[in-house]
Amino acid sequence: MVLVSTRNPLNLGAAARAMSNFGLLQLRVVNPYAVAFREARSAVGASAVLANTEEYGSVAEAVADCALVVGTTAVRTRELQHPVRRLEYGARLIRKALGSGRVALLFGSEKVGLSNQALSHCHWLMRIPTCEGNISMNLGQSVAVCLYELVRDAKATRPLEKLKPATGAEVERITGVLVDALRASGYLNPGASAATEKKMRRLVRRFRLEARDAEVWLGMLRQILWKLRSVENPSDSEKPRSRGV
Amino acid sequence: MVLVSTRNPLNLGAAARAMSNFGLLQLRVVNPYAVAFREARSAVGASAVLANTEEYGSVAEAVADCALVVGTTAVRTRELQHPVRRLEYGARLIRKALGSGRVALLFGSEKVGLSNQALSHCHWLMRIPTCEGNISMNLGQSVAVCLYELVRDAKATRPLEKLKPATGAEVERITGVLVDALRASGYLNPGASAATEKKMRRLVRRFRLEARDAEVWLGMLRQILWKLRSVENPSDSEKPRSRGV
Repeated sequence: MVLVSTRNPLNLGAAARAMSNFGLLQLRVVNPYAVAFREARSAVGASAVLANTEEYGSVAEAVADCALVVGTTAVRTRELQHPVRRLEYGARLIRKALGSGRVALLFGSEKVGLSNQALSHCHWLMRIPTCEGNISMNLGQSVAVCLYELVRDAKATRPLEKLKPATGAEVERITGVLVDALRASGYLNPGASAATEKKMRRLVRRFRLEARDAEVWLGMLRQILWKLRSVENPSDSEKPRSRGV
Repeated sequence: MVLVSTRNPLNLGAAARAMSNFGLLQLRVVNPYAVAFREARSAVGASAVLANTEEYGSVAEAVADCALVVGTTAVRTRELQHPVRRLEYGARLIRKALGSGRVALLFGSEKVGLSNQALSHCHWLMRIPTCEGNISMNLGQSVAVCLYELVRDAKATRPLEKLKPATGAEVERITGVLVDALRASGYLNPGASAATEKKMRRLVRRFRLEARDAEVWLGMLRQILWKLRSVENPSDSEKPRSRGV
């Protein structure tokens, strides 16, 4: 990654932090504002990225060993007539190009972006798909977004998460205790119809209960049922075994 | 988007800027550090997002009208046993959920992230796929990356860019003048074989010339050929018509 004429040390630091977050290590700077570079380097938590940053006097030198040079821009059109590609598509081309050589990704200064001189070294340009109403992104944030797009995994699904659903028997036990509790509380008539019971069964199944939660719900409902029955019939005071969470 | 206990005014401002960049307008803050909130609001260029930010005393109030509450976290596992989804996958679920209700995306404080109290309001958590070596992202940058993932267009290809390739006739004219120039310069023997000419034809075609460049190349080569011939034969000084870029 190549930062050209960066002014703000916070942005230099933020760019380095994003590189570290996404596993890119080689930062090059061209004509940074001297104070910015010094401050960013000495900032608390300056990462390995900043420690190894290379400083160049020109874009030509900074990209000399790169087979593909991509500039970033907020604007949609340039007099230079470079093709401007959306990040989603450009990143695909960059990943492909990385298979056969180094790629330089250029970011210009906060105020004016890349100069025409810097742009003339680029094969094409890339833009983040921002809204027309506010196309100008903060430098550190646009670096983070570009690097994220380069490392994101389009096929990422639910990798670690293995939800174990409750079994039919567990759900049926819960339904039974719930119906009993609703009868005991007076919500359902003691002689509630089979249709009502079926309705309850569907209601409970819509929860898509996990196995680890089924036990807890059963315990809570049993306790409520026991309490309801003991209110109804105070002599029956045998507590069910505890099922606390 | 809900920012919980944010400390740094720069991060509040950066979050608001990213929302504006990606077209999200409703920012809610819960217990922000008072100074941070005041400073961010009065910052130069504070956008419409900050002007309309709503302040809440608790996460419960901030997410009361949301059908889905998603927390963000840098760590992979939590005692709370929430499912933790990668951003690429989580964003798909969020986009789907947005079809049927409001979604709250929670970001915790810079130092400690979301508290267990805040996490208990979340249906699940989402993490940005950072490197093991440095999982902790800057708040403003992680907001930008999450919002980008929500608005990115997976099908984005080359939309505006309509490169018009040079026609076969144009490429053939260039090949002809190039061969003539190479003969005149002595690079090729005057009686170079047909095989050599075919090699040149393939060489030129590998450039995948654009129509707008074909004219320029032809003009440059014709000028060079003319100069070569005039050196060879000084009396023949008729210049070709200008073809400057």
